[in-house]
This record gives sequence, C-alpha cells and structure tokens, in this order.
Amino acid sequence: MGFGIATNMVKAGLETYGSDVVTAQIDKFVGLGGTPGQLTAVAAELNSLVTVVINAEQTEDVLFGSAGIAKQLSAGTVVISCATGAPEFARKMEQQCTELGLLYLDAPISGGVVRATSGELTVLASGSPQAFAAAQPVLDAIATMVFKISDAAGAGSAMKAINQLLAGTQIVTMAEALSFGVTQGVEPATFLEVISKCAGTSWILENRAPHVVAGDYTPQSAMTIWPKDLGIVLDIATSAGFNAPMAAAALKQYQAAIAAGLGAEDDAAVAKVYAQQAGIKLPTKDADS
Amino acid sequence: MGFGIATNMVKAGLETYGSDVVTAQIDKFVGLGGTPGQLTAVAAELNSLVTVVINAEQTEDVLFGSAGIAKQLSAGTVVISCATGAPEFARKMEQQCTELGLLYLDAPISGGVVRATSGELTVLASGSPQAFAAAQPVLDAIATMVFKISDAAGAGSAMKAINQLLAGTQIVTMAEALSFGVTQGVEPATFLEVISKCAGTSWILENRAPHVVAGDYTPQSAMTIWPKDLGIVLDIATSAGFNAPMAAAALKQYQAAIAAGLGAEDDAAVAKVYAQQAGIKLPTKDADS
Repeated sequence: MGFGIATNMVKAGLETYGSDVVTAQIDKFVGLGGTPGQLTAVAAELNSLVTVVINAEQTEDVLFGSAGIAKQLSAGTVVISCATGAPEFARKMEQQCTELGLLYLDAPISGGVVRATSGELTVLASGSPQAFAAAQPVLDAIATMVFKISDAAGAGSAMKAINQLLAGTQIVTMAEALSFGVTQGVEPATFLEVISKCAGTSWILENRAPHVVAGDYTPQSAMTIWPKDLGIVLDIATSAGFNAPMAAAALKQYQAAIAAGLGAEDDAAVAKVYAQQAGIKLPTKDADS
Repeated sequence: MGFGIATNMVKAGLETYGSDVVTAQIDKFVGLGGTPGQLTAVAAELNSLVTVVINAEQTEDVLFGSAGIAKQLSAGTVVISCATGAPEFARKMEQQCTELGLLYLDAPISGGVVRATSGELTVLASGSPQAFAAAQPVLDAIATMVFKISDAAGAGSAMKAINQLLAGTQIVTMAEALSFGVTQGVEPATFLEVISKCAGTSWILENRAPHVVAGDYTPQSAMTIWPKDLGIVLDIATSAGFNAPMAAAALKQYQAAIAAGLGAEDDAAVAKVYAQQAGIKLPTKDADS
C-alpha cells in the first residue's frame, strides 16, 4: 500500500522520496518518477512523512527506534501514520512528536492495495487542525474520502479498529452463511443474488461473496491481515475490560484457515474452512477441476 | 404479521377470513373489513390458506393436527406457509399437501410487523409453478419483493434460514462494534455516521444502530425472534453436520439479553449486554435520564 501511496503523491506533483526495506521497490519507484536519494539525507527538508508499515511496533521503530527519523525532521513537519494500532499508541506518538515540534496525524487507511494504487483510499483521521492542514496535499493525492473524526490522535485508530472488527467478523459470517446454504442445496450464485437484496446483506458480503462464487482466491485482501487486525482489536478490548465474542469467534476461523495453508489466499478463502469441515464442495476457478 | 397480511389482502379486494387464537384480533380484523365467519365453516371455499405462525410445529398443527384444516380444503387450494422452519419440514408439508390434492408454497417472509402492515414484505418462496400461480393474488397483496427460488419446497426455507443467520449475527456484531467504540471514546452517533460509509457497514447496521443512537428500544423487531430463528438455523446446521460458530456466538448474546430482562425490547437492545459487561453508558431516550 505504501508503494501505491508514494506513486500517487508523485502523480499529484509532490516531490516524493520512497523508502522500503525491499530495495527493488525503490528502483521501481524511481522508475515511476520518484525522487532518488536517501531518506535520512533529506529528512530535514520534508514537509510530510507518511509511514505505511504493518503495526504499531514498526511505526515506533521508524520514528523513534535506533535509526528513527523523527529527530531529523524539521519543526512543523507532519507525520502521517497509516498503520492500524491502538488509540493509546496513537496518543503516545502524537505526544512524542509534539515534544519534537512535529505535527502528527493519526491516519489509518482503508481500501487495500487496489485503492492505494488507484489513489482512492479512505482515511480515518484524527489530529490537530494544524496537522490536518499540513497533511492536506498528501491526503488529496492518496484518498477520495477523508474522515476528520476528532482533533486529537487516537480517534482515527479507534474508528479503524471498529471498522476492522466489523469487516473481519462479517467476512467470516458471509463464509459461514454461504457454506451453510450449500449444505441446504443453495448454490453460492443464488445465495449472492438473493441475499444481496435481503436484510442479511452487507458491504463485505457483496464485495467478497463473488470471490467464492467465482472460486477465485487471488488475494485482493490478504487472509493474513485478519489475525493481525483482529488481534489488535482484541488487545484493545482486553485493555478496556471489554468482551468481544464475535470478533474472537471470527479470529479462530482465520487462524484455522492459516493453519490449513490458506495464508497466501484472499480472505474470502475462509469459506474453505467451513467447506472442509462440512465435506461440501465450493465452486472452483476451472469449471472442470 | 398475520394481521398485517390479512388486512392487506382485504385492501386488495380479496375476500378474507381471519383466524387467530387471540379473539380480540378477529374483532379488530372484522372492523377493518374482514369477512366474519368460522374458518372451518368456509374451508372448502378457500382458494388460498396463508399460515403465519411461530414455527414448524404450529404450522403442522394448523394443517394436520387434531383440528387441522388441510383435509377440509378443496383440491387445488394453495397453502402459503410463512413460518421460518427447516427445509426438510417444508418438503414434508409439500408432500402431505400434494397427497391431499393441495398446492403448497414454501414462503417464509421477511420484513417484520412494520412491512407486514404496509404490505411490503419480502417473500423467499419456492414451490411448483402451479403453487406460485395460485398464490399470485395473495403475494401481490402482501409483498413488494417475491423471490422465486426454486420449483420445489425447501429452498425458500433454506434461504430464509441463511438470511436469519446473517441478520441475527450481524445485529450482535453491530452491537459489539458500537459498544467497543464507546469504550474507545467514539460516540454511537459518530460510529453510525462514519462506519455506514466504510467497509464495515451492513443493511442491519444502518437499520438497527439508529435505535441504539436514539436510545429507543421500542420493539420494531423483537429480541425473542432470535433465539427461535438462530435455534432453527443451528438445528438445521447440526442435522447437516455443519458447525456455525458465528451464529452460535450470536445466539449466546441474545440468550444473555433475555436473561437480563430485555426480552420485550427491540433486538438492538442486545447492545445493553455489552454495555453492562463493560460498564459503559449507551444513549438513553430521555437526554436527562
């Protein structure tokens, strides 16, 4: 997703430096018009730093680790933090950035690689008006929908966690309902056709059930996102003394999917866990296989 | 829902006899233009018999019990069976009706009392072309959407069970996510505003979350429907050797809600189970209470 974001910043005319642990990505980025140069060498000149890493730990490492960049940034630079994490973590990052004279935007993103590439992300953002103002050129370049949820870090991360609880749980519920239907003689295509017009429908069902209907599990949204994101949700819940049995039940099904060797597939492949358990057949990509 | 259905049949100009164990309902129905008279006395004249009872057991009792009406109906009369039940049960009813020369439409309904009253139900129907043809005047009077799922009984019941699995599970997931948000400082109104535009949204979320936001639990869809319907879903699943952990987790939350004395409230009140567990406050109807 970071590659898509950086590329859209270039397209929007912003001078953009890319950094990635995979150096081949940098070469590809420079080929697309990205500015070459070591990030640490140009840190002091940056107006914005966008961090698109896997979790809070990596975010903290990039900013404040042994080779952390935060201390090299100039006062007034905005840090746009896109990883999903706990609200408490976002508040801590905001505080540490403020102490260095930096602005901080708690800006988890939604939309996956597809929308990161097309510049159509949704950003669930919270931060000071100054942070929003400084981040505006970047937000304009990468997103079509930016929610300004509150004027302090934490609320963006909270909303992202809420959305992931719902989306992650509803993918599993879709898979359960579709597979249950197959046991009762309802074809997946009929399931999708009818249920998408009934009270049981959801954005997730209409987005993911077609993958099962087509038997195409090319990863558009990776299975491995969910143990991570639902793990974050459940960690936050535990800290708040909150029981989340639906999210916990969904997490178990993703873990079963990954244990069954489905980690490299689209998250809709969680339906295969149900199919295997019940001994039913789901559609396959090649009609004759 | 039977009252609404019967009333809309009267409005459509169909001569309609109402029968209910609650005799006050009959008086009310006659007041609205329903035809008086004992159902058993007019059985042989009926073109259609619509059964709107709570489950399979009551359906079987109405049709084939000690005072069952099926044997008094004339050949060619269509039985339109609206209760949620197992597909296997619908197939059995179809067979028993066929043996008497009757037509049978497996016709579970969706939409609640509100849409039954307005004549805007959704019907998930399966049955022979003859059964559909005979049922058409009634379907036209009571529903705005009729799915013709297959030409044999059972498929309608299966699709209804699938829809109830999804809807019942997603009400609980909505309640879990909304309450989780409150623990993180996200107001229910903000939750609804933002999430309804994100990947986590669902028809159920947009329909039920407003009840929690308003703190108004006047039953539009009764809490007690769900232990019944998810119980039916899980019974069907068990018969098919199918594990449905999401539906099972949702059922537990409804049972907890009813145990907490919320059985007379709207199903969205399942959010109170979460609120009580986590010690958070949800909106109340009176701003000052």
